[in-house]
Amino acid sequence: MVSIVLELPVDVWSDVACPWCWVGKAKLAAALEGFPHRDRVRVTWRSFELDPSAPGQVDRGVSYAARLACKYRTSEAGAEAMIARMTRTAAEDGLEMRFDRIAPGNTFDAHRLIHLAAARGRQDAMKERLLSAYLREGARIGDPETLARLAADIGLDAEEARAVLSSDRFAAEVRQDEADAAALGITAVPFFVLGRRFAAPGAQPSETLRLLLDRAWAELAPIDGPDSGPTCGPDGCA
Amino acid sequence: MVSIVLELPVDVWSDVACPWCWVGKAKLAAALEGFPHRDRVRVTWRSFELDPSAPGQVDRGVSYAARLACKYRTSEAGAEAMIARMTRTAAEDGLEMRFDRIAPGNTFDAHRLIHLAAARGRQDAMKERLLSAYLREGARIGDPETLARLAADIGLDAEEARAVLSSDRFAAEVRQDEADAAALGITAVPFFVLGRRFAAPGAQPSETLRLLLDRAWAELAPIDGPDSGPTCGPDGCA
Repeated sequence: MVSIVLELPVDVWSDVACPWCWVGKAKLAAALEGFPHRDRVRVTWRSFELDPSAPGQVDRGVSYAARLACKYRTSEAGAEAMIARMTRTAAEDGLEMRFDRIAPGNTFDAHRLIHLAAARGRQDAMKERLLSAYLREGARIGDPETLARLAADIGLDAEEARAVLSSDRFAAEVRQDEADAAALGITAVPFFVLGRRFAAPGAQPSETLRLLLDRAWAELAPIDGPDSGPTCGPDGCA
Repeated sequence: MVSIVLELPVDVWSDVACPWCWVGKAKLAAALEGFPHRDRVRVTWRSFELDPSAPGQVDRGVSYAARLACKYRTSEAGAEAMIARMTRTAAEDGLEMRFDRIAPGNTFDAHRLIHLAAARGRQDAMKERLLSAYLREGARIGDPETLARLAADIGLDAEEARAVLSSDRFAAEVRQDEADAAALGITAVPFFVLGRRFAAPGAQPSETLRLLLDRAWAELAPIDGPDSGPTCGPDGCA
């Protein structure tokens, strides 16, 4: 019997302009930390836009609390309380969120950049850099020059990033991720799919993600295949 | 319940200098032809070198039958019979094999090219072009200029192919595929793994591959996940 344990895919739909997505990413990292087969886990960050119609740049003059209050049809004080809760929760995972600095914008190009980084083997680093830039540093996430700088920060070629951003490269890949999300009925993020079998919506506790990693890994049990057809080996073909 | 059916991975280890690998590729294509979920199948061609120590170019003066006879410690007539059998079998799948033209060589760079093509979304076309070039056209598979031409044939940038071939890019990816093959105990190719669960060694009949596709697809049944953690949606974060 041939043992078939190649890799455990973990697909995470998330946005960059998304506080809980950063928390969820930290929770996943913590879950993977103690997972004995972590070198066999392949995490893929899939694109999801919370607000596809957002303009490239949004006026920084309006406070995050004011915009949140408007969205939730609540008071600005109520929104401030929500922000405080998110900030505290994030801090527990070592993430500094600075809602006072946030400069909202369209994240489509950021997602294209994440796909470019994936092709260069740097997807996780790019995703982390963008989340931190947006949620802590107040970076203008829809600005191509800002994005090129962030790409360079993680060792990508800034010129290549600019070339990609001024073209429509990786647009189809972003759209495919979003179509997959729609097919799965995903309307909020983060959203984890482990081993293409286990769905975990929201910023799950790392313990829950670890249990799901264990279950998904156990599902990779080897199964017999058919007898061999003709092959070529080191000594010739037969 | 969220239905988790994203894609069905099919990993195939194979070499370019490998008649049964071309046959196996045609069998897989035939199996996919009638598979209702074929647009959800992701085929990955993984690197395997039957003769890693082969020099870049091998003298064309020695006939394929003579080399085969030497390898199998059989007569040249016996080898000719084997070649005739392979040629007939391949013809049944519409593949013209011309053993009289074969120019053996090292396939490491061809595998690096297949990885480049994968990064450009053209892996299947590159694999097919290389098999055809080697097994039908007598192309010098270890020659960088030949490889650049074959890359251009399927729409890749010949200059980029040359740059990759003159560097060590994608060498690590080829080695990783080979390490995975070793970990799975694969010593002969082609070798199919469907859904990361079902192993099928050798050039299987397309009917067998189709049955395995059906079984692997059925295994992708959806499973409940945990309740949602906090998420961000179009209307804000909660």
